[in-house]
Amino acid sequence: MSDKRTELDALGEFGLIEHLTKGFKTTKDSTVFGIGDDAAVLSISEDEVSLVSTDMFIEGVHFNLMYMPLKHLGYKVIAANVSDICAMNGVAEQITVSISVSNRFPVEALEELYDGIRTACEMYKIDLIGGDTSSSLSGLTISVTVLGRANKKDIVYRSGAKEHDLLVTSGDLGAAYIGLQVLEREKQVFEANPNIQPDLDGHDYIIERQLKPEARVDIIKFLKELDVVPTSMIDISDGLASEIMHICKSSNVGCHIYDEKIPIDGKTSMTAIEFNLDPVTCALNGGEDYELLFTVRQEDYDKIKGNPHMTVIGHVTDAKDGIYYIDKSGSAIELKAQGWNHFSD
Amino acid sequence: MSDKRTELDALGEFGLIEHLTKGFKTTKDSTVFGIGDDAAVLSISEDEVSLVSTDMFIEGVHFNLMYMPLKHLGYKVIAANVSDICAMNGVAEQITVSISVSNRFPVEALEELYDGIRTACEMYKIDLIGGDTSSSLSGLTISVTVLGRANKKDIVYRSGAKEHDLLVTSGDLGAAYIGLQVLEREKQVFEANPNIQPDLDGHDYIIERQLKPEARVDIIKFLKELDVVPTSMIDISDGLASEIMHICKSSNVGCHIYDEKIPIDGKTSMTAIEFNLDPVTCALNGGEDYELLFTVRQEDYDKIKGNPHMTVIGHVTDAKDGIYYIDKSGSAIELKAQGWNHFSD
Repeated sequence: MSDKRTELDALGEFGLIEHLTKGFKTTKDSTVFGIGDDAAVLSISEDEVSLVSTDMFIEGVHFNLMYMPLKHLGYKVIAANVSDICAMNGVAEQITVSISVSNRFPVEALEELYDGIRTACEMYKIDLIGGDTSSSLSGLTISVTVLGRANKKDIVYRSGAKEHDLLVTSGDLGAAYIGLQVLEREKQVFEANPNIQPDLDGHDYIIERQLKPEARVDIIKFLKELDVVPTSMIDISDGLASEIMHICKSSNVGCHIYDEKIPIDGKTSMTAIEFNLDPVTCALNGGEDYELLFTVRQEDYDKIKGNPHMTVIGHVTDAKDGIYYIDKSGSAIELKAQGWNHFSD
Repeated sequence: MSDKRTELDALGEFGLIEHLTKGFKTTKDSTVFGIGDDAAVLSISEDEVSLVSTDMFIEGVHFNLMYMPLKHLGYKVIAANVSDICAMNGVAEQITVSISVSNRFPVEALEELYDGIRTACEMYKIDLIGGDTSSSLSGLTISVTVLGRANKKDIVYRSGAKEHDLLVTSGDLGAAYIGLQVLEREKQVFEANPNIQPDLDGHDYIIERQLKPEARVDIIKFLKELDVVPTSMIDISDGLASEIMHICKSSNVGCHIYDEKIPIDGKTSMTAIEFNLDPVTCALNGGEDYELLFTVRQEDYDKIKGNPHMTVIGHVTDAKDGIYYIDKSGSAIELKAQGWNHFSD
């Protein structure tokens, strides 16, 4: 090893994985697509492909067990992985779960975790097919790999967006981030005075969005029923802004999104304002919504128009036109992804 | 959660994963075999199956960076996973690698790690197709998932051993464990006096077995060339005794293995004795050899006889005859797996 020392946060999370894997080449005939999308794509027959995605969740970085019940955590790590398969327009079928855990946890705690994992497997109709269990020196780490399938012709990459396509998001955004703020606040109140019960009244929706997000398997079904194959797609795990940047970079396009089009739930807005936060900023830069962001051809607009689960928030432009957010006054602001850089936390 | 508290080490590593996953059922047509072998088996076409296996490696539990160079570590985690695909009589094709790492590591350290991963990918002709990179509060955790393929008719499970089959191991055993003892000793000498250079002379082979083990892809090729399909197979990652117990339990058989048949390299024996350890005990209960243990039908004996890479160490008996180790004096000792229970370390 040379004496040079580059700190991890100098590259950020996406930059780091790109840097570390840039010297790798894929050589197998069965590898259709490797690193760089929500899932890898492997050829399995003339018509079908297998999809593979993996994620790691670390106590103190991705979750805090002080307000995240273990059963919910188990559910959430599965939903988050299934969401990656949805983002390829595929169907999740199998999952592996590895955990490392310190002696601080009793068997009963892990039973809760696996109870949540089982509930999610039943919900999403997927099979747990493997995993590893090991001790750790501190805390809980969960690593999940999900396998899915799709017809070759249905696969949607991040890279297929074309100028004039419409940019669409499922559901509403920002709620999971605001839910986290409420849970953080109540944790601090509790730490200051353990006799005070947490006040979560009226926050059911946003807290559920944080503690028990769902993968939008229903959107994949709707798209199939509507006979719409998006031109590009990604799941919104790191905030809308970051995901838009990924699509634009992969597709080599620009885009315009409109402030007043971004779907934000009423409770999310009210609570954001209570926290002195701009709701749209929460939607743009908050994470963990697990909604789907996709682009469709203009001619498909009539098929999705009026669908309560899908909102057109902008359109794709030429790359040289840049990536802009148009605010309420009509001013165009260049979009920058803040996302989550865990290394600089 | 109930108030009952059961400590993790009450169940052990294998017992824990069995306990946590016992409520899970597989429901997908594509899931041929789930938890309980070296890899899961998924159907992909009429003739072919996909194989999936996953492992987690934790600093301070599975490796010590004081004597394990990061490049070797990267190589080893890949080899260990490829070994699981070999144990199913399959060929590894793709791999995903997720890491969580604390700020203590500079980018240059991770470059070393990925250099080792890349070297292993080239050696085993596999593609890195995905992964996740995240910060951790302490240390380095690596999670690897490997995907492989095999013809349906070639798949070998742990469960196929039959009475009178021969028990065969590849290579030699115990070296990786003794290599670890040498490295541990030199670490302690170094800690006591940092001016003393480590004395690893003459220990090249056993240290390489610990730091740079290889998956026995060559054995899978030999078996194919010899037209031998083992009746059962497992890789020796936790010590010969533990793996024999797995095969016997899965196949519902017993076995006799013979002390004088167990292949142990001369250097391994000499160094074991230097450490006041019985070489055979190191082979039985040491880990990380990554050799293959398999059973073959008696009529296949002529095909493997004299092969320098394979040694017949015993034979399969009826389950009610038990699992016995026959020592040099001819006494039969009932075999008990010690393996690695990281939770009670």
